[in-house]
Formats: sequence, structure tokens, C-alpha cells
Amino acid sequence: MATAIQEMVKAVILTISDSASRGERVDLSGPSVAEELKAIRSEVVTIEVLPDDRSQIADRIRYYADNGLANLIVTTGGTGFSPRDLTPEATRDVIEREAPGLAELMRAESMKITPLAALSRAVCGIRGRALIINLPGSVRGARENLAAVVRTLPHAIDLLAE
Amino acid sequence: MATAIQEMVKAVILTISDSASRGERVDLSGPSVAEELKAIRSEVVTIEVLPDDRSQIADRIRYYADNGLANLIVTTGGTGFSPRDLTPEATRDVIEREAPGLAELMRAESMKITPLAALSRAVCGIRGRALIINLPGSVRGARENLAAVVRTLPHAIDLLAE
Amino acid sequence: MATAIQEMVKAVILTISDSASRGERVDLSGPSVAEELKAIRSEVVTIEVLPDDRSQIADRIRYYADNGLANLIVTTGGTGFSPRDLTPEATRDVIEREAPGLAELMRAESMKITPLAALSRAVCGIRGRALIINLPGSVRGARENLAAVVRTLPHAIDLLAE
Repeated sequence: MATAIQEMVKAVILTISDSASRGERVDLSGPSVAEELKAIRSEVVTIEVLPDDRSQIADRIRYYADNGLANLIVTTGGTGFSPRDLTPEATRDVIEREAPGLAELMRAESMKITPLAALSRAVCGIRGRALIINLPGSVRGARENLAAVVRTLPHAIDLLAE
Repeated sequence: MATAIQEMVKAVILTISDSASRGERVDLSGPSVAEELKAIRSEVVTIEVLPDDRSQIADRIRYYADNGLANLIVTTGGTGFSPRDLTPEATRDVIEREAPGLAELMRAESMKITPLAALSRAVCGIRGRALIINLPGSVRGARENLAAVVRTLPHAIDLLAE
Repeated sequence: MATAIQEMVKAVILTISDSASRGERVDLSGPSVAEELKAIRSEVVTIEVLPDDRSQIADRIRYYADNGLANLIVTTGGTGFSPRDLTPEATRDVIEREAPGLAELMRAESMKITPLAALSRAVCGIRGRALIINLPGSVRGARENLAAVVRTLPHAIDLLAE
């Protein structure tokens, strides 16, 4: 893109994990997502750890989007096939416009590394002026998926602010 | 396909653009889509320019599909991240059956040219005997995306007429 | 995956075809899907032939999933553009969580063979502890699509049983 980027990316990272939210496991995925976001000019407002609870996930996305606290909300975890994996459903509950191309690109790139990437049920979409992106829960999966789209995010967020 | 194509493709092109609908900008995308449709045996019934208004877009798609005026309705514009980009939502409002493979193929081909193609939120689907296809608003994006699927359209439209 | 697979794959194959259900055509796709499932440790519980009837398809998926008779329900047929092709819609009626990556991977692999693969409207998703996968109706299309994902299925089904 020739256009200069105007908007600063203000990111919130939501780690979705029952065990990490109970303190039984240290959250490594959240910090690794923050590390990957250094690829673009961005500020990580906060990393929050939540249990795999559909309404709680939806509430926190709404909170950060609707109060203008973030224009990028990245979740990590809860995108798989376990009965408790409900992050995509929570995301669909709150997005107003879907952005399927970002999820498709993440999976396509990730499938070059492992066919199990096809099991990611990640959803991406827009609520107000915030972009929401689901990533898998593993440190490696989260970074690989985010790396596939990270450079398109400043332009996307700039358009949301129009 | 070995099967001979029976149905003539009758296409309507809807250019979705606030500025073009106000006459502040000449519509170049609509005519370039018409040009690309020459790759298949087809007749362009009309090119219409509409503002980025969700219910107006939905109404015009319904009008052309339900009155048998077209079996292919191609929109250009309104598939991005700006707050006024609502063409995919208008399309979802009226389609009865989604055809995700066409949107996936357009984005996959387009991403080979630019990663920003992942930001296209285009939707494809069926209403009655009409196929609806969203394309991006830029002349180049519209042509590249349509080129990725244009040769599959006669067969698709033939099946709709069964 | 390093993890050992615990759950046995118990598959039901639903052939969706008006003509085969009326006995006017022999079902070749169902048996060919069973053949392809030999690539993984699995048991085919039954092959059933159904007409292209949306509520009947939905009912049978519910029956096999909700009674624990199968953890994998593979449909073949009804994924195209004919007015009677309603398998994806029936599948959406009953799944609780979508698994778009499996459908994307099947189409991406199939498109390497023919661009007409973009016309598959197949949907994949989860109901309870069962995974539902739509395949095209042609013997060749069904096998090619299933081959693209079959090796990820034991891991997916293992996660569902957690």
C-alpha cells in the first residue's frame, strides 16, 4: 500500500485457558503474541487470562471494543475441537462484520507446516472500530498464525477508523 | 467438464460506491467487470451504481434475482474494512445458499499478488436461480478476483437452472 | 502429533441422492468413501442412502450423533448448485460448532485438480461428540476431498471425546 498508516495499533491480548485462568499453568502464549506484534508499530495495552467460558469471552471483547480501549483484540486458545473450545462461537456472538480472509490466510499458511492446522476453527471479524482475531492456544501455533497476517493489520485498522 | 453448457449467462453488475453514486467519481470498476466477463459467453444486462447502503444493495439483488432478469449478479465495492463497507452483509441478507468455495478461490488467487487481499470480506451465494458474487471495488482487484472464477460460472449457472 | 490416539473412529456414511434413494442408481460413492476410510483405524457402522431432503438429512445426522452411534458422520452428495443440493444447509441446521478449516483444506486440495472444485459448498462441523463432514457426490470428488483431511480425523475425534 502506498497510503501512509495513521492509526496506532492498540492491542489487547486475551489468553483463553481454563488451566491458566486458575493459575495451574503459566500463560506463555499471551507474551509470545505480544512479541510477534513487535513486527508492526503497536502498543499492547494488556494481556488478560480468561477461562473457556463463552459469555465471559464475549463480554471482555465487547468491553475492550466498545470503550475504545483497543482497536485490535487478539485471542489465543479455545479454537480447537475439545468440548470446552468455544472461542470462535464467543467471537461470532459479538462481531458485526466477519473478515473470513484473515482466518483463511492464517490456516493456509499454517497448513504448509502441519495438516492439523485444518482443525483450527478460528474466526476473525469486526466490532465497531476494533478487529478481533482468534489464534490457536499453542505458543508455536499462535505465533505462526499471527505472523501470516500481522503486516496487513495496520492497514485494516486504519480503514476501521475512517 | 464434458457437459455442454445450455444456459446463457445474463449478468447484472452493481457498482457499490457512495462517491460514484453521487456522481463525484466515474465508475471504472463496473465497465472493467463487463470487460472481464467477455472471457465467457455472456450478456451484460446492465451496470447500475448504488451507494453503500445495506438495504438498498439487498433490494436490488432481490429485484434482479426474483424477476428473472439475471442469473449472475456481480457486485464491485464495499467488501473492505471501512465502516461503510457493507456489501457482504447485504449479500448475506438475501442469499439462500452460500457458495464459500468461490470466495475462497478468489482470495487465494488474489493473495498470490498481495497479502492485502486477505482483507476482502467478499461473500458468494445463491438466491433462486441467480448466483451473486462480491468483488472488491478497485479496478484491478475486481478484475483479478473475477478472473479467478469466471470460467467456472457457466457451469454453475447451468446447474442453477436445472 | 506425538499424542497417542485413544478413540476408535466409528463412521456412518450418508449418501445423499434422490435417484439412488429411489433405487434408480447404484450408490458407488458410499462404498468408495468407506474404502478411503481404511487409511485410518476406523469402523464403518453403516452406509445409508437418503433423498435430497433437507429435514431428513438433518434428522439422520442428529440421530447418529445424539445416540452415540457414530463419532464421524460423512455425507456424500448434495453439495453443488442444483436447486435440490441442500446438504450444506441441512448440516448447518444441526452443527453446534463449525470447523471451516476442514472444508477449506478439502477445496484447496481439490482445486489443484480442477477449478470446478470451487463449486463445492461443503460444510464441516461438530455436534456433541460427532464430527460431520460433507463430501461431493461424485466417486472421484468424494475420495479426493476425503483424502485431503482423513489423516487429521483421528486426532479431531479424540479431542471431541475429552
